[in-house]
Amino acid sequence: MKTIRNKFVLLAIVIADLTTAYAQDPLPSWNDGPAKQAIVDFVKATTETGGTSFVPPEERIATFDQDGTLWVEHPMYSQVMYCMDRVGALVKEKPELRKVEPFKTVLSGDREAIAKLSMAQLEKILAATLTGMSTEQFQAEVKQWLAEAKDPRWKKPYTELTYQPMQEVLKYLRANGFKTYIVTGGGQDFVRAYAEQTYGITPEQVVGTMGGTKYGYDKDGKPFLTKEPKMLLNDNNAGKPEGIHLMIGRRPIAAFGNSTGDRQMLEYTKAGDGARLAMIVLHDDAEREYAYGPAQGLPETKVGTFTQTLYDEAKKNGWAVISMKNDWRVIFPFDNK
Amino acid sequence: MKTIRNKFVLLAIVIADLTTAYAQDPLPSWNDGPAKQAIVDFVKATTETGGTSFVPPEERIATFDQDGTLWVEHPMYSQVMYCMDRVGALVKEKPELRKVEPFKTVLSGDREAIAKLSMAQLEKILAATLTGMSTEQFQAEVKQWLAEAKDPRWKKPYTELTYQPMQEVLKYLRANGFKTYIVTGGGQDFVRAYAEQTYGITPEQVVGTMGGTKYGYDKDGKPFLTKEPKMLLNDNNAGKPEGIHLMIGRRPIAAFGNSTGDRQMLEYTKAGDGARLAMIVLHDDAEREYAYGPAQGLPETKVGTFTQTLYDEAKKNGWAVISMKNDWRVIFPFDNK
Repeated sequence: MKTIRNKFVLLAIVIADLTTAYAQDPLPSWNDGPAKQAIVDFVKATTETGGTSFVPPEERIATFDQDGTLWVEHPMYSQVMYCMDRVGALVKEKPELRKVEPFKTVLSGDREAIAKLSMAQLEKILAATLTGMSTEQFQAEVKQWLAEAKDPRWKKPYTELTYQPMQEVLKYLRANGFKTYIVTGGGQDFVRAYAEQTYGITPEQVVGTMGGTKYGYDKDGKPFLTKEPKMLLNDNNAGKPEGIHLMIGRRPIAAFGNSTGDRQMLEYTKAGDGARLAMIVLHDDAEREYAYGPAQGLPETKVGTFTQTLYDEAKKNGWAVISMKNDWRVIFPFDNK
Repeated sequence: MKTIRNKFVLLAIVIADLTTAYAQDPLPSWNDGPAKQAIVDFVKATTETGGTSFVPPEERIATFDQDGTLWVEHPMYSQVMYCMDRVGALVKEKPELRKVEPFKTVLSGDREAIAKLSMAQLEKILAATLTGMSTEQFQAEVKQWLAEAKDPRWKKPYTELTYQPMQEVLKYLRANGFKTYIVTGGGQDFVRAYAEQTYGITPEQVVGTMGGTKYGYDKDGKPFLTKEPKMLLNDNNAGKPEGIHLMIGRRPIAAFGNSTGDRQMLEYTKAGDGARLAMIVLHDDAEREYAYGPAQGLPETKVGTFTQTLYDEAKKNGWAVISMKNDWRVIFPFDNK
């Protein structure tokens, strides 16, 4: 009987929740307009029992790019900031690297020289800071950095610079039986270190650039995994649908991106049968965040490029373009406080 | 109001379900004994709110080897049977292969000659039958084969030869908030073609040997993925914990296997903190299924080897050995009918 009584209490809570949820706007940080409407219409169409576009819950897969789609990516991807910051800790452990390039340049703090590092030199920095340690050690290092590092413009931890309107989309989709995945060009293990706390997305629902690990034993015979400098999949461009197939094994019915690296994921999602939602964020708000494209005459960038060709493809194929400036009432969670 | 009324109907169903579930034995195909007790004790310990071994639902990850743990693997893995059978279809599409080795030998049906094929020749057969087609085409081919092929001993589709006691464990764990994963040396895409229908395990919860895919467009410009003959991860032995990290990103708290290929997965699972369950199936029932080891003096085999060393490690490390003969009241779902 205790179980049944508890169940009734639970029911009261569920009803209260439901009533509140239906009474309230699920996307309060969005201005009314075609972008918001596209999301609401899609969710209604795919979840209405008996509707012609109904999708069973196990097929409700939604994928989100991270950098520039769920959180700020300018002036530089947070993971690159992490790698640069880690060089300091690295030379403490291995002082012999202090006078060796490219570490010497990074330590100099000379922004101009750092910007001129070659791709091979950057890769050396990534390999040195993202591999060679146990998976547990890496996770602890990332968590420590996130607790201390601050974005230079907002003077806030990077994990607070998520977009409130997208946080609402994640919750709205999950409340409607969707599984929400991150599909990022960033490192899978890097993003997993904070995705659960930051977005409510569990490690198994983070698809990212994947490196190999190596199974071994410590001196007490306890098994652990070491992160190896071996790329399994570069989860960018065509790698995004490939990564989605590898990790999810099902084509998403909704996808969100913001740059040319998301093109194939959006195409792949939209090419399936039935109701589909493809959305792309345009960073056109220099005042509240950043403005870059170069679509629609926005400034050029190497970080999160959104070309005019991509813009035209979006318009042609029915992907909804989200204008940060016009569609988002607020940008960050702290804007509401 | 309609929503609330529906919710009450749902509640009545939930209560009926709960009452039935608690009144009934969740593992009716298991004989009473230490193996069954280990499962029940573990589930109670990890799910009891406020208990010292309580594990929050998001960390309740259980992994299951497939061949020999969830379904029959003798006399040969079903996927190998598939590849051999596919050679017939393959030479219909490419008649020039009919007189080329190793396809010629497979087509001859000469069991002795087939058994003597070299590893390089077997790999040629696997590559020809498992790659080169689109992911959708492959799934259709596997489904068609499963609908037609029959196991030679039981004269039943392979998907009916799952172990009823393990089906009950899968359901029992899921009813208690666990996520159940297959972690198999078999091909990830092969197992995904039937795992949902056969085990209630969705594609994203199948971890297997992983091959690369390649994104491209058909003549109408529609994107699709082609299965490539490129191995990303061999999900066997040390590859199992590596595959678990890649696909799940969290250490399981329960793992089930039956052969040396599962050793590292069981070690890795058991090495974590808190309550852990590691179980290993011993095929000691020649009458109702098969008997092979060579642990405990059982006959040697190359398919699903369970050595005495592994048996000793199990006993030493507190992995529960499941004796098919003694612990399982029935073997197959159809035994109950």
